[in-house]
Amino acid sequence: MQIAIPLYADMTALDAIGPYEALNRIPGTEITFVGEARGEIRTDTGRLGLIVDATLEELPRPDVLVVPGGIGSRRLAKDERWISWAREAHAHTTWTTSVCTGALLLGAAGVLQGRRATTHWSSVPVLEGYGATPVADERVVIDGNVITAAGVSAGIDMGLMLAAHLADEDAARAAQLMMEYAPEPPFEGGTLATTPQSALEKLPTMLVPLEEEFAREQSLTA
Amino acid sequence: MQIAIPLYADMTALDAIGPYEALNRIPGTEITFVGEARGEIRTDTGRLGLIVDATLEELPRPDVLVVPGGIGSRRLAKDERWISWAREAHAHTTWTTSVCTGALLLGAAGVLQGRRATTHWSSVPVLEGYGATPVADERVVIDGNVITAAGVSAGIDMGLMLAAHLADEDAARAAQLMMEYAPEPPFEGGTLATTPQSALEKLPTMLVPLEEEFAREQSLTA
Repeated sequence: MQIAIPLYADMTALDAIGPYEALNRIPGTEITFVGEARGEIRTDTGRLGLIVDATLEELPRPDVLVVPGGIGSRRLAKDERWISWAREAHAHTTWTTSVCTGALLLGAAGVLQGRRATTHWSSVPVLEGYGATPVADERVVIDGNVITAAGVSAGIDMGLMLAAHLADEDAARAAQLMMEYAPEPPFEGGTLATTPQSALEKLPTMLVPLEEEFAREQSLTA
Repeated sequence: MQIAIPLYADMTALDAIGPYEALNRIPGTEITFVGEARGEIRTDTGRLGLIVDATLEELPRPDVLVVPGGIGSRRLAKDERWISWAREAHAHTTWTTSVCTGALLLGAAGVLQGRRATTHWSSVPVLEGYGATPVADERVVIDGNVITAAGVSAGIDMGLMLAAHLADEDAARAAQLMMEYAPEPPFEGGTLATTPQSALEKLPTMLVPLEEEFAREQSLTA
């Protein structure tokens, strides 16, 4: 069972690492981090380098595809090399999945056409442009063999769910124990509805430059 | 505010990436991934490479230290270069923290002496050997300016708690929203007490070779 997880410039690291940790101990799975070229990419903050071990062309037909998100996904969703790779891969996968705005690449590849799907809360309406039915209030959406997860940390929940499908529930629960995933967020929150206005006002100070540009574009087109 | 996160061979990636994502948007913080040498390390599964951007000696006095765990932490806790670096760093930090068995390095550096502390569920008793009071039933333990988190995914909860201390609660809640951290584990579990026996029986098939060795040693000395 070959699992491909793309890595690319300006992605969000946890989007990939969450499902990777949930899946990497499932017996019989082989995970490969793929990308445009072997070697280092830098994530969205510029502060973390991750290593691509195989090019897209070296792994054209993974059994499972897990596309992480991050602001760099906007570029992927316009890049014919990525789009055709994702489209070809999906034609042969058992499961095609995304975390956060990784859904944009799946959308551009036609995978979400006619399906219910989700993504990071800030980008849910964008999915409509790909012919999907955007789902704003579910953390993990399964439609056929396509699973889309909400933002960043939702990839952990999705990864454990996928682990149960790839192996069985006991294996997924064992992986959950290895990760000691019994979450206790220090604050109620993590969704727009549960975040107080005083915290929402802090968001603009947290955007990386590419996200600022995206936010400006969205408000211009609203 | 300089935050140092060590990366090393056979570490668990999520231990580092969880708190990194919680902290990396907090205004005024600078996160640097440090290690023995600049360049690539491979994590515990061998399937993921992460990049060290600065040597330990290049960042001797971070304001905040976040030590991730993983089976490779056993080596760090016996390596004088790592131990003296951690000891020196702690003498000047605002906060010294660990995730999972990152606590072993803090223990070896004398940081946990006389303190309540936690680590991955499989290693909690080990902390006693470092003069700590092991805590098995708290996910994040704060004692003075030392914070220890339980296994792997507990670093996300710890990171958000730390974000609130470094900035304020609103900034932490905004980071939580950016990460869409409103967890919904697909199964009840993540602790020994909540994992069914049928799942516990899967654990031995999930250990990487170094962990098998560790498990054998533990049962030999039990």
